[in-house]
Amino acid sequence: MGWMQDEAGLEKCAANYVPLTPLSHLNRARTVFADRTAVIYGDTRRTYAQYHARASQLASALQVAGITNGDVVATVLPNIPAQSEAAFGVPACGAVLNTINTRLDVDTVAYIFDHGGGKAVLVDSQFLPVVEAAITAMDGPAPLIIEVPDPVAGIAASGNHAVYEDFLAKGDPAFAWALPQDEWESLALNYTSGTTGRPKGVVYSHRGAYLMTMGTPISWQLSLFPIYLQIVPLFHCNGWNHTWMIPALGGTVVCCRDITAGAIYDAIADHGVTHFGGAPIVLNMIVNAKPDARRIFKHTVDVFTAGAPPAPATLSAIGDLGFHVTQVYGLTETYGHVTECIWDQAWAELPTDAQASIKAHQGVAFPILEDATVMDTAMQQVAKDGATQGEIVMRGNTVMKGYYRNAAATSKAFSGGYFHSEDLAVQHPNSYMQISDRAKDIIISGGENISSVEVEGALMHHQSINLCAVVAKPDDKWGEVPCAFVELKEGQTGDEAEIIAFVRTRLAGFKCPKRVVFQELPKTSTGKIQKFELRVIAKAL
Amino acid sequence: MGWMQDEAGLEKCAANYVPLTPLSHLNRARTVFADRTAVIYGDTRRTYAQYHARASQLASALQVAGITNGDVVATVLPNIPAQSEAAFGVPACGAVLNTINTRLDVDTVAYIFDHGGGKAVLVDSQFLPVVEAAITAMDGPAPLIIEVPDPVAGIAASGNHAVYEDFLAKGDPAFAWALPQDEWESLALNYTSGTTGRPKGVVYSHRGAYLMTMGTPISWQLSLFPIYLQIVPLFHCNGWNHTWMIPALGGTVVCCRDITAGAIYDAIADHGVTHFGGAPIVLNMIVNAKPDARRIFKHTVDVFTAGAPPAPATLSAIGDLGFHVTQVYGLTETYGHVTECIWDQAWAELPTDAQASIKAHQGVAFPILEDATVMDTAMQQVAKDGATQGEIVMRGNTVMKGYYRNAAATSKAFSGGYFHSEDLAVQHPNSYMQISDRAKDIIISGGENISSVEVEGALMHHQSINLCAVVAKPDDKWGEVPCAFVELKEGQTGDEAEIIAFVRTRLAGFKCPKRVVFQELPKTSTGKIQKFELRVIAKAL
Repeated sequence: MGWMQDEAGLEKCAANYVPLTPLSHLNRARTVFADRTAVIYGDTRRTYAQYHARASQLASALQVAGITNGDVVATVLPNIPAQSEAAFGVPACGAVLNTINTRLDVDTVAYIFDHGGGKAVLVDSQFLPVVEAAITAMDGPAPLIIEVPDPVAGIAASGNHAVYEDFLAKGDPAFAWALPQDEWESLALNYTSGTTGRPKGVVYSHRGAYLMTMGTPISWQLSLFPIYLQIVPLFHCNGWNHTWMIPALGGTVVCCRDITAGAIYDAIADHGVTHFGGAPIVLNMIVNAKPDARRIFKHTVDVFTAGAPPAPATLSAIGDLGFHVTQVYGLTETYGHVTECIWDQAWAELPTDAQASIKAHQGVAFPILEDATVMDTAMQQVAKDGATQGEIVMRGNTVMKGYYRNAAATSKAFSGGYFHSEDLAVQHPNSYMQISDRAKDIIISGGENISSVEVEGALMHHQSINLCAVVAKPDDKWGEVPCAFVELKEGQTGDEAEIIAFVRTRLAGFKCPKRVVFQELPKTSTGKIQKFELRVIAKAL
Repeated sequence: MGWMQDEAGLEKCAANYVPLTPLSHLNRARTVFADRTAVIYGDTRRTYAQYHARASQLASALQVAGITNGDVVATVLPNIPAQSEAAFGVPACGAVLNTINTRLDVDTVAYIFDHGGGKAVLVDSQFLPVVEAAITAMDGPAPLIIEVPDPVAGIAASGNHAVYEDFLAKGDPAFAWALPQDEWESLALNYTSGTTGRPKGVVYSHRGAYLMTMGTPISWQLSLFPIYLQIVPLFHCNGWNHTWMIPALGGTVVCCRDITAGAIYDAIADHGVTHFGGAPIVLNMIVNAKPDARRIFKHTVDVFTAGAPPAPATLSAIGDLGFHVTQVYGLTETYGHVTECIWDQAWAELPTDAQASIKAHQGVAFPILEDATVMDTAMQQVAKDGATQGEIVMRGNTVMKGYYRNAAATSKAFSGGYFHSEDLAVQHPNSYMQISDRAKDIIISGGENISSVEVEGALMHHQSINLCAVVAKPDDKWGEVPCAFVELKEGQTGDEAEIIAFVRTRLAGFKCPKRVVFQELPKTSTGKIQKFELRVIAKAL
């Protein structure tokens, strides 16, 4: 402890202590980058001075509407400018931002409204029916609806609610922001995508989000003025906190309502996009884009991928198309990505396949994380031998405050002083972690553990396969056996026996799928495959 | 304020809260960058694993020697590896690091030992006589001397004291670091260079230094693995906190004992140095290097310059030599640089002279600083017209805790909720600040304020002038008049009348020096010209 003999007069004061908050970035950008382009959507261009003014208007209008300190304000919006403005405007009035997944069902949205206690909700007109139905289904008091039509996408207002631009017009563009007095105050409430059971409300602090925005530029090796394509939904870990970070760099956010290969290529070619994040499914989309969706560009686009372990085959293919992909890993509970497969230039000498395999590692801790490692059930470090399996555990300032109104789940998640990811992994001799499976996704066949990720990786080398997922199918003899669900590339036909034989050339016999089912895979809004649905199908086969 | 309705279970705990400290960077690098080269000095190369082990040994050995939490441990060292090891090893045992300027006189060192209360001091053998004499002159108890000989530079141990490597050998390389329990704990004590009066002891917190290391990569646009030449003395704002930052980036510190143009060119050519910081005097050294000191290199070297406003003429000349210079500004009280002249690509269209003028601006706040602006004496924002003068004031987490054992000076420095730099500046319409003068360096002639920086800038365009300084000379008629002190380039002779006439072609008559004196300029160890000495001379002219 570094308290000096005499600390009199060395206390915190207004000059030397400011609670950390990502809101400071936009406050600074308003002055430092006043005339730079902050946001692009369709033909709309807004400078940092305008972006700040609109966020201020939103904060002011919310206050006028009765929103006060610590109230929850929800959004059900795609990645349009209103969503970015809410990222700053909602906390700027002292409220907590609750970005809700636009693809959720009525029942779940009602649950989130009730559980989170949202006082107001910004809703894109497209998703208004779900929200209206959810409000009808709620137990508690209804949130105030502020409707956000999207003329750029041809989506008109319903005429039944106050409209965003009118609401904003009531706000003062010079409103004085309600910055946190304590950096531990809550900034955001994010419900987990919930592969089983009710979603849990993950609470972020201003401190955690600020530190996230300061660590990412180092890990992503960002320079000033990036052109960032906002693909990662802002309702997923607040877009990995990137929207809060971009003003620190004077960058430009290019909004993207619908994520298609064409939209991505267009944004790169038309706006010079330099960076985006996306789940592996987005990489797949790019790799398999039809010729008329592709555009020519000359620069390299830096991509962070996370959300699921990407297949080495996909990583290998996308590199040739002008994209530099880095695999990152994290969870809603860690504000998004907190480990990274930092690339060692020496690996450039390895064969392409070996490089792609390494790129699929989840890697090592971001600079902001105190520790990320693999431990056994007794909370002991596992051997770093690339084979011994344990759980990824993490500790640091970008771990959530906890689950809202669920102290039991929080306490379980933090047992032993680390956050438990429930992801199973091995650790290589260089300390790089590699996920073998979600704890609940492991397949146990005849007493042997089978990593569904490993089987999926083998399948993805097959030329006809676009996407796949492997789950356990109950089996009288073996307990469980691997069952593969496969989405084929357009124009391809599937042959179950041929695919099983293909995998057999790459994996031990007991790891090969015993069944292959051809169908579109059910996915969460964030591109995660919903294995629990597939398990139901597998069980019935 | 963002406290939610129910914050139960959302408290800080071991999993989600770690006090911020730059020590975390080396802790992480030990694992993440274990085998990368961390430190180079002469033929010595040390990996991150070794760097961490040696810092741990130092911490452990200090503890064995009786150093305990909050004790002050001083260093009187040039930028050799022991100085970098002390940056981590001293706080790793819970102590506070007090890096003392190697060029100070006996009396001042004795004052610092007494005032700071150092319990131990690491001393380079070259500076041992001064330290021994200072200890003799002290009032309080003497610090334990640990002598650091430097075989690389041919500097042998005196034989009178414990020697660093032997001291280290007593320490445990696996020592568990005493990380701060509160990020406000003191990390370092840095005495100001003191252009007048007794130096003041500036105290840094772990929090402030950590945030400094997270902001600089954004401002300097650092990628991973920089090769950093350690020119800025570690006794000057702890080398602008760069040594604490480099492990976060997996970079390499190239130590530099004696700063000469030859040493700089050699480090660039031999080790591939990509970055360094330095006072304008270092830039001057490079621009005026003799042919046999120059080396050929093909990459661009990124340079942060600070410590005094660089002359536009110097900035213009160095760009052609392969150096990309960014002007930054800060003080010991702000952990080093906290404003930056962020470059706008649009300015590349301007004439070279105009570009160099802009590059000499002190610019705008770093991302970690909450606010940096120019205010008048009533603490009101001045007009951003490039003409109205005020004082640069700053507020944020990289402002010092205060002056050690000098609450009155702290309170004065922080009056009105901002840190007062005592630097006079104008602010341009784009909010960029430009220093016109130190408050005490302004020359008031016939009621007109004359910026000594402006007169110096004009003089630096003269081909024969290497360095210059302008001070006030008392004058019966005008009150004060500008008096120039000039250091000529090698082989040049000076002509007072010719130089005055030269300045007259660039500045209003009342701003032109009335006298020009040719002599070597007195400088502090950090390259700042000691104007108070020149004022004494000017007064006697």
